[in-house]
Amino acid sequence: MKLTILGCYSATPQVNTNSTAQVLEIKNHTFLIDCGEGTQVELRRNKVKFSRVKRIFISHLHGDHCFGLAGLISTFNLLTREADLHIYAPKGLKEVITMQMKLSNSWTNYQLIFHELTSKSSELIYEDDKVEVHTIPLDHRIYTNGFLFKEKLGERKLDMNAVLNSDIDIAYYRKLKQGANVLDNNGNLVENSLVTKDPKPSKSYAFCSDTAYNESIIPIIKDVDVLYHESTFLEKHESLTKPTKHSTAKQAATIAKKANVGTLILGHYSTRYDQLSEFKIEAKEIFPHVKLSRDGKQFSFD
Amino acid sequence: MKLTILGCYSATPQVNTNSTAQVLEIKNHTFLIDCGEGTQVELRRNKVKFSRVKRIFISHLHGDHCFGLAGLISTFNLLTREADLHIYAPKGLKEVITMQMKLSNSWTNYQLIFHELTSKSSELIYEDDKVEVHTIPLDHRIYTNGFLFKEKLGERKLDMNAVLNSDIDIAYYRKLKQGANVLDNNGNLVENSLVTKDPKPSKSYAFCSDTAYNESIIPIIKDVDVLYHESTFLEKHESLTKPTKHSTAKQAATIAKKANVGTLILGHYSTRYDQLSEFKIEAKEIFPHVKLSRDGKQFSFD
Repeated sequence: MKLTILGCYSATPQVNTNSTAQVLEIKNHTFLIDCGEGTQVELRRNKVKFSRVKRIFISHLHGDHCFGLAGLISTFNLLTREADLHIYAPKGLKEVITMQMKLSNSWTNYQLIFHELTSKSSELIYEDDKVEVHTIPLDHRIYTNGFLFKEKLGERKLDMNAVLNSDIDIAYYRKLKQGANVLDNNGNLVENSLVTKDPKPSKSYAFCSDTAYNESIIPIIKDVDVLYHESTFLEKHESLTKPTKHSTAKQAATIAKKANVGTLILGHYSTRYDQLSEFKIEAKEIFPHVKLSRDGKQFSFD
Repeated sequence: MKLTILGCYSATPQVNTNSTAQVLEIKNHTFLIDCGEGTQVELRRNKVKFSRVKRIFISHLHGDHCFGLAGLISTFNLLTREADLHIYAPKGLKEVITMQMKLSNSWTNYQLIFHELTSKSSELIYEDDKVEVHTIPLDHRIYTNGFLFKEKLGERKLDMNAVLNSDIDIAYYRKLKQGANVLDNNGNLVENSLVTKDPKPSKSYAFCSDTAYNESIIPIIKDVDVLYHESTFLEKHESLTKPTKHSTAKQAATIAKKANVGTLILGHYSTRYDQLSEFKIEAKEIFPHVKLSRDGKQFSFD
């Protein structure tokens, strides 16, 4: 699992600070999360192959999280994309994008499939045999979801020495990998745990931006390996979090601690701050495993 | 009069090539012409003060000419702009922008005034005592206008020696500047041309992008000082101009020659070409005064 930060600043893109967008590579998927203005250029800069992006998750319809989407869709079309593109986004975005395409007389040659989100409860919005994606309802000025990406637990691994010693027919190997007990060639029951090993642990990633401090997300993100939680402000500007429904670094760390996450990544910084290091210092007073996102930075979770 | 090229490439913005946007400074106005994705960042990079941009002219609704507008409008709002913003654009853009603002619950605090263009004939769309702006109907895949910006001829300049020698009362100086004949203190008529000089010549700029080769624009842009004419392709790809309704450098130069313009600036290059110099070489075979636009380049017309 690998996370590439394309942009991690709030509000307005500037010469050296991009709006929110990130790429999560998980189990052979390349998921794009949010798509602020300029995302298509940042995808190129970070050498993410456009053709690999098949599912885009949009947290909410503030411009710094979605104004790059129309351009990306158009560019995919100009590059003669054929693969379907799935977009998971709050209701309303489909209508805007459709209108933009209509006005420019530029329908996509590929299938553009919107999954419109309206639920205020966490829901499973994508699943295959390797991963699940759930929404995380957030508390922001407009309808907003974070996203929880979970690898499914893989198959159990055969302990080949034990399997061979137990005289088990090869036809049963598939069953063993699935965790079942089987019969050996003499008709005796073999306990699965004696001949297999635990699969590689599954990883999980929670993206939570934008949101006010909101403890109701804790049960959903409990024990995730990595939590990206917005920290627009430092604690000295805590008064600004109420009208804007954003969080401080301290609040992000408090959520990380209460949810017992592995690592906290901070981001969505207000551009009023010169030194990002202050965010880390503030968060580490509450929770030890803190990393700072920066535009173009990659995090490997393995 | 000064022109700053923010972006001069066609179709899709890339790491080192921006979509169309330019800033024309004329008679104390700062006009923004087109607004491709990323324009707000390019305005910052080129140190154009946001507060000076009060009128934006959008040629057409292909994304590479307008997908930066929603972000720019939002950023103006975040920066607590108060001044009115006028947008001259094809009908439809107002509806899209309004929907985007509605969905993000972000109405502007300043007045956003759309002037929706629908006419297929050239029309005067802005005028004050110093400048005029006219549309230039272009031939593209969707409804498209270029824009003709003309300084109005200034007041005549007093030839103070002649004025004093003619014994003209100071109360008449204003009339003289306006070109009128006046009476001297003895009641004799004084011919205006004997006591005033011609004003500084007025400058004009025509922006023509995107368009197929289209001789019907020639009467409108006749004798302009500077013509920006798109040259998406070189002549070796002339066959591509028909389905796309774009022009070659040679076609742009032919229009420049027939319209007897002062200088031709080429732009809206397809990113398929590595060497822009080829555009200049091709155009100069037809018309001598050719310049190449490049992102970040400034042209002074004085």
